[in-house]
Amino acid sequence: MNFTLTVLGTASAMPMVDRYQSAQVLSVHGRFFLIDCGEGCQRQLMRCHIPLQRIDSLFISHIHGDHIFGLYPLLSTLGMLKRDTPLNIYAPSSFAPILKFFLSYYGQGIDFEIIHHPLTMKEPETVFETRTLEVEAFPLNHKIETFGFLFREKEPRMNVRKEKIGEYGLSVEEIGRIKNGGDVVRGDILIPNSELAYKPYEPRSYAYCSDTAPFPELSGWVKGVDLLYHEATYTEEFAEKAAERYHSTARQAAECAKTAGAGRLVVAHYSSRCRDIGAILDECRSVFPESVAASDGDVFDIPLEQKR
Amino acid sequence: MNFTLTVLGTASAMPMVDRYQSAQVLSVHGRFFLIDCGEGCQRQLMRCHIPLQRIDSLFISHIHGDHIFGLYPLLSTLGMLKRDTPLNIYAPSSFAPILKFFLSYYGQGIDFEIIHHPLTMKEPETVFETRTLEVEAFPLNHKIETFGFLFREKEPRMNVRKEKIGEYGLSVEEIGRIKNGGDVVRGDILIPNSELAYKPYEPRSYAYCSDTAPFPELSGWVKGVDLLYHEATYTEEFAEKAAERYHSTARQAAECAKTAGAGRLVVAHYSSRCRDIGAILDECRSVFPESVAASDGDVFDIPLEQKR
Repeated sequence: MNFTLTVLGTASAMPMVDRYQSAQVLSVHGRFFLIDCGEGCQRQLMRCHIPLQRIDSLFISHIHGDHIFGLYPLLSTLGMLKRDTPLNIYAPSSFAPILKFFLSYYGQGIDFEIIHHPLTMKEPETVFETRTLEVEAFPLNHKIETFGFLFREKEPRMNVRKEKIGEYGLSVEEIGRIKNGGDVVRGDILIPNSELAYKPYEPRSYAYCSDTAPFPELSGWVKGVDLLYHEATYTEEFAEKAAERYHSTARQAAECAKTAGAGRLVVAHYSSRCRDIGAILDECRSVFPESVAASDGDVFDIPLEQKR
Repeated sequence: MNFTLTVLGTASAMPMVDRYQSAQVLSVHGRFFLIDCGEGCQRQLMRCHIPLQRIDSLFISHIHGDHIFGLYPLLSTLGMLKRDTPLNIYAPSSFAPILKFFLSYYGQGIDFEIIHHPLTMKEPETVFETRTLEVEAFPLNHKIETFGFLFREKEPRMNVRKEKIGEYGLSVEEIGRIKNGGDVVRGDILIPNSELAYKPYEPRSYAYCSDTAPFPELSGWVKGVDLLYHEATYTEEFAEKAAERYHSTARQAAECAKTAGAGRLVVAHYSSRCRDIGAILDECRSVFPESVAASDGDVFDIPLEQKR
């Protein structure tokens, strides 16, 4: 029942010798979701011991090169590895010609289906759903169409308190109802669900917000998220450049986390102008103490808080 | 007056965590020529302290992804670095749509001219020439159109022996003639160039042959080359696979070097099946002792042998 983020790259558009470009993997209950795919992503996956064959689906924020130039090599490798299950890619509609060009020139040997789900929403919308997880996509405020993603465990079914089964002589049908949050009636008395059952854990959540300039709706869209990744391309010193390029400063990222009431903030996507990650981190923490400035390969686990 | 090869990547199609894909830099007299451009090439350039801004021209053997997927990111970076001199790319004609697609989607910010010189020759042909260097391209024997490159210093002008100037009272005009290889006449006597002058150094040469199955003409086309790079994707154990995929074994690479009378052989482009580079090297050396199996970052210098 893991819920773990691995940051594969932390540089922005200008590459750095010690930092790869944007790519992350969120592992949820043993499934691997790849978010963005900068150059060298497949090498970083190997370095972080994430098996390429086990990538479940891809979430692409936008088609700028630093978020996507690792995709052609990765798809080619998946072809060589004889992947045979479909690959779902959630990406802006502008991604369509990028994929089409790849398939026309490098599609030989790609024997798995690649399904592009074009993102066009103006407000948060569920794009991916399993029994236990859902993913919402929402627009960001960047130079070209760009989307963020919110991964959220669904509310778990209630656990019935064992001692209550005998006490009230609960039937199989009643137990089923209680697991779905229902109450039980005995004569005139309603026994509330809260007495009969407990929520085994609080659903966990992760939001990815890159690249974006700040905008008021965002903190509401990621309200209460356990772990928020927000780009922090610059320090406040370069606030003007950040605004001009539709990026955020470290302070702005931290303000989003604070307003959203996030559990923790992770920042990256550092400009080559801001090589001192300490300055980025200090700026974040002055607004939102639970901040981390990520380095390539960093792992952030959201533990399951089991209840009784 | 350097003549130095830096091997940036030594893997073949399947990426390895410790080996980048095909890319090399030949530095001649301070100019940097990039040969192939696999994924991560720009990072390897940075690692090897080769300034991206100073890349002179590009030589692309073929458009398979492991030789070219680093090109989009590199061109984007050169745009951000504000390169303002034209970039000449010598590449197969099949490269044209690859470049066109890049420019149509990622061309914004590329303010330098990119000139594609399409290669179509059936025999060696000079494609690049300066006062001191020439580069021949020649076809290889691969699944798709593929070319090798021979970089060769031109014959230097002769150095006039200082003591002969006084001895024969050589005029400025005569000195010019001698530098170009001419003789001098004094009365009835012809004084041969060899008495008056000497060749200051032997021209140096480097040939790049990847990817290719062996074919008889190749060793003639790179005859006497000082340093020969020849792919050695497999050991003989996988000879059948090599033939099927239009690749070479280590033995075949070494036989080419031997027949060509090369000075030294460097091999790479290792299959992920042949992780034991020692076995590749042993196979080469059993045929051609002056063999090296390259690792990423290896540097091969061809020193200038000055004469008097």
